[in-house]
Amino acid sequence: MRTAQRWIYAKRPTAAVGAEHFCLETFEAPAPGRGEVRLQADYFSVDPYMRIQQAARNTYDAPHPLGIVQQGAVIGRVVEMGADVSALAVGDWVSAYSGWQTQATLPVSAVQRIDGAATSPTHYLGVLGMPGRTAWFGLMEAGRPQPGDTVVVSGAAGAVGSLVVQFAKRAGCTVVGIAGGKSKCDFVRDTLGADIAIDYREHADWQSLSNHLHDRAGGVDVYFDNVGGIVTDAVLPLIKRRARVVICGQISQYDGALDTPNLGPRFLQHLLFQRASITGILSRDFVHRMDEYLARATPWVARGEVHLAETRIAGFEKLPEALGMLGTGGNTGKLIVSRAAA
Amino acid sequence: MRTAQRWIYAKRPTAAVGAEHFCLETFEAPAPGRGEVRLQADYFSVDPYMRIQQAARNTYDAPHPLGIVQQGAVIGRVVEMGADVSALAVGDWVSAYSGWQTQATLPVSAVQRIDGAATSPTHYLGVLGMPGRTAWFGLMEAGRPQPGDTVVVSGAAGAVGSLVVQFAKRAGCTVVGIAGGKSKCDFVRDTLGADIAIDYREHADWQSLSNHLHDRAGGVDVYFDNVGGIVTDAVLPLIKRRARVVICGQISQYDGALDTPNLGPRFLQHLLFQRASITGILSRDFVHRMDEYLARATPWVARGEVHLAETRIAGFEKLPEALGMLGTGGNTGKLIVSRAAA
Repeated sequence: MRTAQRWIYAKRPTAAVGAEHFCLETFEAPAPGRGEVRLQADYFSVDPYMRIQQAARNTYDAPHPLGIVQQGAVIGRVVEMGADVSALAVGDWVSAYSGWQTQATLPVSAVQRIDGAATSPTHYLGVLGMPGRTAWFGLMEAGRPQPGDTVVVSGAAGAVGSLVVQFAKRAGCTVVGIAGGKSKCDFVRDTLGADIAIDYREHADWQSLSNHLHDRAGGVDVYFDNVGGIVTDAVLPLIKRRARVVICGQISQYDGALDTPNLGPRFLQHLLFQRASITGILSRDFVHRMDEYLARATPWVARGEVHLAETRIAGFEKLPEALGMLGTGGNTGKLIVSRAAA
Repeated sequence: MRTAQRWIYAKRPTAAVGAEHFCLETFEAPAPGRGEVRLQADYFSVDPYMRIQQAARNTYDAPHPLGIVQQGAVIGRVVEMGADVSALAVGDWVSAYSGWQTQATLPVSAVQRIDGAATSPTHYLGVLGMPGRTAWFGLMEAGRPQPGDTVVVSGAAGAVGSLVVQFAKRAGCTVVGIAGGKSKCDFVRDTLGADIAIDYREHADWQSLSNHLHDRAGGVDVYFDNVGGIVTDAVLPLIKRRARVVICGQISQYDGALDTPNLGPRFLQHLLFQRASITGILSRDFVHRMDEYLARATPWVARGEVHLAETRIAGFEKLPEALGMLGTGGNTGKLIVSRAAA
């Protein structure tokens, strides 16, 4: 059965993204030729960067082209192989960047075998994948936490943020997680182990949030920002001498404000007064160090020392809707869509 | 004659600073005791940091206290010494942080002898003083210019900016100076040697300035910012991969906006896309390396290889008014008030 489905990115969103920006197609996956494999994708990664790539202007790449399969990472299994392929076997779990299609025929060099027995295969989209690498290197290399530092994490219940909270605790820091809603805050504090969890939705403006953060936590040595907007407005006036601010995401700005920027309070004077720094990081800048990260993190996962938050949505047809959920904070931890309906 | 004058900082400004925020007093300078010298100040430094210290909130220090002599650096001569002082002689040129008073009696450890014969004594308030050190280490350590980089300098005709333009040229960079008004731009290009000079006052908003900068210079590798506000709004969307932004000043924000921040377009997404960094620097963080800087810069000054821009205002009574001039861009290069009237 090589009949498969795929989501074509068809129309650029100017505000929230949803099903109206994609077309669902049925197609016939090619039989694998020499050096190729055919995989069936079981789990699809849904990531904020997908919305960035829908901005009208260049961001870190040119905009995602219209009229092609939505790009993204998947976890699946090899279902057919070219006659000369020996490095893999049918049934092997693999990861690939084959996008939103239920089957893909790819060169063997474009798939990576993963150890689906040792752990859940979906962990390779989360703690053992791109979000894990981003959290680890972003925090440790750009944030440079010292024991006793106060580390504030925005989007603390998200795929990256939930790991940053835990990694910062391992580094001996006092950790403040900021998230939206009581249940996420409970999760950030009680499950992830943050010392303080703050619900930004309880504050009407950045000044109120900033005052509350100051009352609860005092000053900030490291700010790991996934969110931007009023949460960042609230944190930046509280940075301490030589604080490190890591910009990992600005999800509050993705639904249109990348093209026409919102206004916010100016804050560069705080950088001056505190001789602090802001550094933007992307996961791809640490790809060459994935071996180093996996050597650290795989034992933590095997021993259950890291909590692996995941929101899983059943059904390939839900992918566009799931992408929209990122913008409204509908997920806790890594957002994944499984091919099969519930 | 120990009768002297001093300017007391008397009232906190909430917008532009001027004479109404100071009181002029006559006083009797004490005769120097053991280990002390009395100096007569000939030149008074007028610096943007003085306005920062008038903010209502803590900035890099607590606010400048009311009711005391306005603090600041001076260049003067020793006029009287305690009997046991041997390291100095009457008539020696010295620098001190004795503030806005025409005479001061200080411990000998609080004055530094300068070589008034080798160069103009006022250079120790400029190229061989705090602004020189700030320009050099800010550019080289935080900006890290590489040959061929495009370096943009805001406040390019100011005390620090005029040196950054020249230091960046020495580093083999293409230099764009942004300043206010045609005569400053002519100076930045024709005298300081910037490749491109742009008058921000010709642009009604940041988008217009940004488009113009992009047309003239393309992308930006290093941005040395003395100004903030719409100039910075215009530059930040043009930063290139791994650009370095140095925040040395935000003078557009000092007249009230430190207490109640202005709004500007959000820009942190550009840091993310380009994996760029912003670093705040202050002169004081490089005080311990003044020896290193002077060893470099003194020969340049002696050989006339660095243009030393200076605006000198005659008359001690003009000091408050001179401080206000910084906010309106009235100076080119280092702003100095001389004690004696013209």
